[in-house]
Amino acid sequence: MIQLYNYYRSSASYRVRIALHLKQIPFEYHAINLRDGAHKTDTFKKINTFQTVPYFIDGDIKLSQSLAIFDYLENLHPEPTLYPKDPVLRAKALEITLSLVCDLHPLNNLKVLTYLREKTNFNDEQIMSWMHHWFHQILAPLEEMISKNKQTRYALTNSVTIVELCLIPQLYNAHRFGVDLSKYPTLKTIESTCLELDSFQKALPENQIDYEGN
Amino acid sequence: MIQLYNYYRSSASYRVRIALHLKQIPFEYHAINLRDGAHKTDTFKKINTFQTVPYFIDGDIKLSQSLAIFDYLENLHPEPTLYPKDPVLRAKALEITLSLVCDLHPLNNLKVLTYLREKTNFNDEQIMSWMHHWFHQILAPLEEMISKNKQTRYALTNSVTIVELCLIPQLYNAHRFGVDLSKYPTLKTIESTCLELDSFQKALPENQIDYEGN
Repeated sequence: MIQLYNYYRSSASYRVRIALHLKQIPFEYHAINLRDGAHKTDTFKKINTFQTVPYFIDGDIKLSQSLAIFDYLENLHPEPTLYPKDPVLRAKALEITLSLVCDLHPLNNLKVLTYLREKTNFNDEQIMSWMHHWFHQILAPLEEMISKNKQTRYALTNSVTIVELCLIPQLYNAHRFGVDLSKYPTLKTIESTCLELDSFQKALPENQIDYEGN
Repeated sequence: MIQLYNYYRSSASYRVRIALHLKQIPFEYHAINLRDGAHKTDTFKKINTFQTVPYFIDGDIKLSQSLAIFDYLENLHPEPTLYPKDPVLRAKALEITLSLVCDLHPLNNLKVLTYLREKTNFNDEQIMSWMHHWFHQILAPLEEMISKNKQTRYALTNSVTIVELCLIPQLYNAHRFGVDLSKYPTLKTIESTCLELDSFQKALPENQIDYEGN
């Protein structure tokens, strides 16, 4: 069975949980508590040299990086697909996804916030300003881009793609950190639509075995 | 003809230039000087709402995000391929690439350094510490991972893949910022091997029309 090292509150872990539930692939959940530094232990370094979650193991196949895991899962279980079939829409899906995964998430993750607190003495207010700044830098152009397409149920098509797998966990974080989302009605509608799906519900942080509060 | 909005010193632009030269796809070069804030103008915002480079236009197809551009180019001109054919190696290539593109590059790019200088009064030494920290966080596990495979000319296979397209521009930046690469002999060997290729030479920052010094 697939082994998934993850943490309920890690948004990259959340993405992979959605993908696995969407494709109805069973997996064994190994909780790695990032707050307690469980990823920094020698034991975990031997499992994943990058010391990050999610970490995915399927027999001899071992992968970090959520988008690499999506690509592998798509090959393993092509249906339901996570990617639009049309090459142009597929590239657009990747564009939107990468804007979230490269230009938003890495700036607001725990290791960066820890560095800022420890090395710059950022106080809570400065940490919040930093986080909100990067949320708006990406959510504003995404709202603009996605709101132009009003014909589909989800961001680009009538089925869930990698866009929603990455967007919903970022919006979860945005709520958690009090980001004002009132200017992003299209993104919020997509969020509500996705959260009606069983696969998204099963993947929610509060529905994981290691949940310890928001 | 394909239009590429880019900047000689942007490492994400450098990646896309290598891909275009490898696939021998002609393109028109539009220089966007990030140092001068050319990406922040209303004119450029109308072209690319994310206000980032590289920005790729092929007729009606418009894309930001280097990995989305690679995916599109691979569909347009499959040969020479940028991805390993084997699904597992393909996922490993994505894993390594994403570690560079998501976990290293976004932390050290100009907009983040500008924020740190302006909002935290980081001095030059603190900026350098920040940058070097993230370089080593990623290059150390990459060296460990890639050095285990000594049978291939490049990181994963005997031909260039997206791994080298993203690694070589990051190593260029590492040299530029004085990062000690002595612990990464495997990565340095891959760099030398790539820089023997015409496509990498053509894509080098110093060989672009907007080059203004290192």
